[in-house]
Amino acid sequence: MKHINKTAVRSFAKSALVGMLCLGTSFSALAQAMGGAATLFISNEVSKDNMVTLRFNAPKANDVKVVTQMTKSPVQMKKNDKGVWEATFGPVKPDMYPYAFNVDGIQVADPGNSNIFPNENFQNSVLDVQGATPLIHAIKNVPHGIVSYRNYTSKELGARQVLVYTPPGYENNPSKKYPVLYLLHGSSDTEETWTKVGRANFILDNLISEGKAKEMIIVMPYGRAYPTITKTGSLRDWPNLQEFKKDFFGNLMPFIEKNYRTINEKDSRAIAGFSGGGGTSLYFGLNNQDKFSYVVGFAPGMLKNEIDRNNAGAFENPEKTNKQLKLFWIGVGTEDPTYGTIKNDYMTVLDAKKIKYESFFSDGGHTWMNCKLFLSTVAQKLFK
Amino acid sequence: MKHINKTAVRSFAKSALVGMLCLGTSFSALAQAMGGAATLFISNEVSKDNMVTLRFNAPKANDVKVVTQMTKSPVQMKKNDKGVWEATFGPVKPDMYPYAFNVDGIQVADPGNSNIFPNENFQNSVLDVQGATPLIHAIKNVPHGIVSYRNYTSKELGARQVLVYTPPGYENNPSKKYPVLYLLHGSSDTEETWTKVGRANFILDNLISEGKAKEMIIVMPYGRAYPTITKTGSLRDWPNLQEFKKDFFGNLMPFIEKNYRTINEKDSRAIAGFSGGGGTSLYFGLNNQDKFSYVVGFAPGMLKNEIDRNNAGAFENPEKTNKQLKLFWIGVGTEDPTYGTIKNDYMTVLDAKKIKYESFFSDGGHTWMNCKLFLSTVAQKLFK
Repeated sequence: MKHINKTAVRSFAKSALVGMLCLGTSFSALAQAMGGAATLFISNEVSKDNMVTLRFNAPKANDVKVVTQMTKSPVQMKKNDKGVWEATFGPVKPDMYPYAFNVDGIQVADPGNSNIFPNENFQNSVLDVQGATPLIHAIKNVPHGIVSYRNYTSKELGARQVLVYTPPGYENNPSKKYPVLYLLHGSSDTEETWTKVGRANFILDNLISEGKAKEMIIVMPYGRAYPTITKTGSLRDWPNLQEFKKDFFGNLMPFIEKNYRTINEKDSRAIAGFSGGGGTSLYFGLNNQDKFSYVVGFAPGMLKNEIDRNNAGAFENPEKTNKQLKLFWIGVGTEDPTYGTIKNDYMTVLDAKKIKYESFFSDGGHTWMNCKLFLSTVAQKLFK
Repeated sequence: MKHINKTAVRSFAKSALVGMLCLGTSFSALAQAMGGAATLFISNEVSKDNMVTLRFNAPKANDVKVVTQMTKSPVQMKKNDKGVWEATFGPVKPDMYPYAFNVDGIQVADPGNSNIFPNENFQNSVLDVQGATPLIHAIKNVPHGIVSYRNYTSKELGARQVLVYTPPGYENNPSKKYPVLYLLHGSSDTEETWTKVGRANFILDNLISEGKAKEMIIVMPYGRAYPTITKTGSLRDWPNLQEFKKDFFGNLMPFIEKNYRTINEKDSRAIAGFSGGGGTSLYFGLNNQDKFSYVVGFAPGMLKNEIDRNNAGAFENPEKTNKQLKLFWIGVGTEDPTYGTIKNDYMTVLDAKKIKYESFFSDGGHTWMNCKLFLSTVAQKLFK
């Protein structure tokens, strides 16, 4: 376990060099080749007692704050005599958090941190506050699965990328077949968010090595039907659901089942998703009970007036649904803005119709810290 | 071919919601759940005639410019009545380019573009200006290889990630063995830069489908000996070379040769790298001619006073080196700051010692546009 997460950023005297650096050239080779004088600082540090120190170089800025889910409200930074803004705060509860700098009203990710939150609408960095005891998403010295970046062609949408996690040993057991979890990201996330922010791969590595989860394949597609649907709105908007459905069932699932050793029956398929992707996973799963026995929503996005429409496949025969589904699981944080709709509207309807489901209420909000908790909880219930 | 690359960003009226979004929550689901009024704009667009339009929301900023290798100098943006800064410029020569916004002196990547330049010292976005004819790095409808994210343990450095490209058909030919190209990134880049900015995987997919390159495995390690070596300085700094060498030969190569069907002899191994990683590839390759018959530098970082030391394995017996190496290849742009050292110092010494090498001089500077050109050129010469 490394407790100190250090990343260094140089600030240069030579503006010409800075110009080149800004343009994406290889940094230090040039710096050294050109003899640039450098002032070093570490942009992000976590101490052994989980105090976090962040730094940002902005000599001319009037005000710089840290915006992060590590704290309830933004953290004011102070400028030192070299023009570097700095703040130390905590102790922070060990977890992996998004953060950014608010520089005179502009949100900026940490240029000294290559761990970026994959997203189509904002730029955040990700900080791993590890703590003394490795968490369920930690990169431990256990057998690791593989995350494969695959490209397939959608008849409707063109070139698409999908990430596929295969569990440890997959490639060495050529006759073994595996169950599959389809795992959908939130509305402005990408196909990389579940691994880079959600650590889905390391969570499963750890659960599998502890004997707590079955070996499974995890498929993480890009959930937006772009370019047919623009990069705005929620994934669970009706037009996106309809267009993505074509790609998901018509192109993606066949691609996966052709290229991986999957067990192709409903008891070996699960679908889960976060936020807008959670609305999608419920819609896909509940209306395709012949394909999925496990249907899971993580703070699923569903408006009150969409409940009847999106759940039609379950509502038309609750008894059959209860028999067909091995698990219908809904998790949400009590501070999540979707909590009210899920708890007061959706679950009330499910109860009235006597549809069985497991509910899981955590602290916290609409966050990827909760996503990691939800996934590590529900993964232990799949395919058993 | 899609010519319009559109990404939309919303600017919200509700500051509370903006606060949540900034913290990395799922964007549009929340927006809709909370009824937030949204103003839409597209942050990056490429027209059919390769005019580029970029937009950035900064109502309170005094000055916003585009900094990019698409143009010789920064492009001034103008603020519209909604506080969105905008610039249109071009036509831009089709290629894939880094860009960012300079907002009152602060460099900011495009929050509406999830294509991020993986780097430890700056934040850039990446724009694909595709043009009418697909380029060698285009995502074409040809058989695609797989990029696998693998985790291995270094005795010296702990948990490490490496990206491995396997060519189309690799997983369906369980008895076939493949040659290997080890491909090193530049000094502040990461193990992801060669795929996300260099498109190494798509370049090889295309060359293989056209019969121009041999099927090969490409191994893209993280080249910094962190945490033993801090995240500063060039990869080809002597301490980094020494520490990374232990990991490369002691952990990484054995991991690859254990887990992939590699042809384990020198005529089936190549090593190449860019900038600081190019200095590393020459040092590793020329001093380990029993392991590599192909040694390649892309604008390799090497100072004049390092030449004798770093090339000792070649200089001690030039005749033997000429026999042992099937290819010693050096590419550099004529506007690259390393051009002078490479052309006037390094190549002069190589010539004096009668060491055979191929030189390749392109237009342009120390850029990833040149990297794509170098890789697509040299990949056609490997393992033949």
